Amino acid sequence: MALIVHKYGGTSMGSTERIRNVAKRVAKWARAGHQMVVVPSAMSGETNRLLGLAKELSPGKHTPALARELDAIAATGEQVSVGLLAIALQAEGLEAVSYAGWQVAVATDSSFTKARIESIDDKRVRADLAAGKVVVITGFQGIDPDGHVTTLGRGGSDTSAVAIAAALKAAECLIYTDVDGVYTTDPRVVPEARRLSTITFEEMLEMASLGSKILQIRSVEFAGKYRVPLRVLSSFTPWDIDITEEAASGTLITFEQEDENMEQAVVSGIAFNRDEAKVTLLGVPDKPGIAFQILGPVAEANIDIDVIIQNVSHDGKTDFSFTVHRNDYTRTMELLQNTVGPATNASKVLGDPKICKVSIVGIGMRSHVGVASKMFRALSEEGINIQMISTSEIKTSVVIDEKYMELAVRALHKAFDLDQDAAAA
Amino acid sequence: MALIVHKYGGTSMGSTERIRNVAKRVAKWARAGHQMVVVPSAMSGETNRLLGLAKELSPGKHTPALARELDAIAATGEQVSVGLLAIALQAEGLEAVSYAGWQVAVATDSSFTKARIESIDDKRVRADLAAGKVVVITGFQGIDPDGHVTTLGRGGSDTSAVAIAAALKAAECLIYTDVDGVYTTDPRVVPEARRLSTITFEEMLEMASLGSKILQIRSVEFAGKYRVPLRVLSSFTPWDIDITEEAASGTLITFEQEDENMEQAVVSGIAFNRDEAKVTLLGVPDKPGIAFQILGPVAEANIDIDVIIQNVSHDGKTDFSFTVHRNDYTRTMELLQNTVGPATNASKVLGDPKICKVSIVGIGMRSHVGVASKMFRALSEEGINIQMISTSEIKTSVVIDEKYMELAVRALHKAFDLDQDAAAA
Repeated sequence: MALIVHKYGGTSMGSTERIRNVAKRVAKWARAGHQMVVVPSAMSGETNRLLGLAKELSPGKHTPALARELDAIAATGEQVSVGLLAIALQAEGLEAVSYAGWQVAVATDSSFTKARIESIDDKRVRADLAAGKVVVITGFQGIDPDGHVTTLGRGGSDTSAVAIAAALKAAECLIYTDVDGVYTTDPRVVPEARRLSTITFEEMLEMASLGSKILQIRSVEFAGKYRVPLRVLSSFTPWDIDITEEAASGTLITFEQEDENMEQAVVSGIAFNRDEAKVTLLGVPDKPGIAFQILGPVAEANIDIDVIIQNVSHDGKTDFSFTVHRNDYTRTMELLQNTVGPATNASKVLGDPKICKVSIVGIGMRSHVGVASKMFRALSEEGINIQMISTSEIKTSVVIDEKYMELAVRALHKAFDLDQDAAAA
Repeated sequence: MALIVHKYGGTSMGSTERIRNVAKRVAKWARAGHQMVVVPSAMSGETNRLLGLAKELSPGKHTPALARELDAIAATGEQVSVGLLAIALQAEGLEAVSYAGWQVAVATDSSFTKARIESIDDKRVRADLAAGKVVVITGFQGIDPDGHVTTLGRGGSDTSAVAIAAALKAAECLIYTDVDGVYTTDPRVVPEARRLSTITFEEMLEMASLGSKILQIRSVEFAGKYRVPLRVLSSFTPWDIDITEEAASGTLITFEQEDENMEQAVVSGIAFNRDEAKVTLLGVPDKPGIAFQILGPVAEANIDIDVIIQNVSHDGKTDFSFTVHRNDYTRTMELLQNTVGPATNASKVLGDPKICKVSIVGIGMRSHVGVASKMFRALSEEGINIQMISTSEIKTSVVIDEKYMELAVRALHKAFDLDQDAAAA
């Protein structure tokens, strides 16, 4: 008997028939003797419907007061889901109880629409589990120190599930989703893409953050920080498949070190992302504090920054580039043109929203040389110009023209033999 | 400048266009210098949609655990409304903030699906009003001592609005609805029905409880208990009509005594109700405690009882009849047949769901004799058989066959000259 957390996405919760299937699957696990906590998303389309209504009524200006209301509205989608799933579980003959984030409570900061979980009180949930109940908890939301409802941003239910699993010290957190695991890259782009039966936490973090949209990045961070065993698996298998088979399916995110894993390929996967935009300040003075002078105001405006590149200087001047989410592009450009550019005496502000980022990810890169150059050669052979390069211990990313994205991904998948079994590579 | 509470029904909140109109109306009042609190219902159809989804998933048996989930689900309808209205008010240039019942907090007991408000904390709302904000609060819901979301039952938003007005000592509570006031009876049944510009609290209580469905009865009780000036008025007037005209429209529920109101007609209105069913226990022993022995278990099963009649006894036996809501009819009959009947040695249990109740209501009845007999004569002239009679100081009700309802209402409306002006009567 173990404490298990299941998370189901909006598609799995998309109709009463599907909710009934989720209940049957959860009931199978509960009857096998597990203590079950379930975190369902809103019914598919519901969050968009609610925010669509809100948008029709919104004033032009985005204010904290508006963000607070958007969160209160959006959070109701999951509040409906948990109630419906609890009822469906009761119909399966189980004792079940649902909680909204504020009832648990899932405490967050006050960054409306992109709040961060700060702590989770496990008392109430533990008492229910001890009493033999299945506990259903809203994803995506929490409560701030002033009692306002907050949401964690899109995909936040993954993070909720992992955070809850961490707080409860769950044996495993199973993320049921519309794909059957983590692939070497997106099979829609490369049909030869292969499912990985395991992936290390670090690799998954890079895959998630680089745009393979299976798991929200913060959920992977949480899993890593609190060592929550995390499995991504398909919600499309019949609910009554053998539980042992189900428990071993999908992709397990592991915490193994490289040396335990000799057969691992050098590169595990290719991630890509076209949600970013590139901005550049030309000719800023190359002096201490310049990076903070540029990025401080951007961070203050709550704009997330991804890749940052500062080139070597000429004549005491340097060029400074970074990427932001494409939704923040206009805001960022305004900020640079009106405030940061003049303040730093930049000679020019440039921007390009038509870019994409393609990355190779692999824990094996730590101990293998020449991986990056192999990547650059493969891109060069396809005539793809590299605009920015960014590297970490286990990934190398390039920013290229958006139109070459699929071509680059296919070329890299092939160059690193990802269509073959790891053992054979 | 006064503190005013507005309540808007689901039809007024039925689309973003209509919500925008509500916001414009509220903004008009706020700009006239009033401190505004608004209690909107869920968008029309939303509560039914949510409970419909829940019903599809429900186990057959109605348990407290199920009721708890139904409340959590249903309460989200109003939670969406308040957020949308707050956003629409912000778009009008006002500062506005929304709260769910649990955030205020509106404290209730734990009777899921029909909870009662126990207290309302006004601190948060007063602080917002003092800061110049319009405060939008969910109707229909609260939070119980264990932190569970509760709902007050259908129409509960009226009660919420009045209770909030009472807690804030509001100058007036305006209930915007799809009728333009309280009529002598339902104009769909009697086209000559007249709108009353005022009605006393006691009469309104009888009208509401007897089935003229303009206001939920508990809202009228609250208004009476806490002396909240309450006005029922139309939400269909243009939002930009003159505020003085709007403030004087509809029907005001007053607290005047009869002697201040000499011109008042003897009977103010005819109420009717076909939501009830009649049950009878024949031949129960006429001994002390028998009423409690019968009605105790019924109350314990959370079944509301309306009219109660105990006939005079013969040979130490009596017949005991009462009416319940038609939805509770089957449950009540089962309880009587399986438990209460045998326990009280009743010779027979009878039931009839095809009844209706018709009542004449008027504070003038206190000091006028012969009103009841005039009622009975009017019904007799139409050949309508009276099954039960129940009287209070200001109303006389009869239970008759459902099929005679419209006929009885029309006959009584005419017999008491309700189609003429009160002053002329």
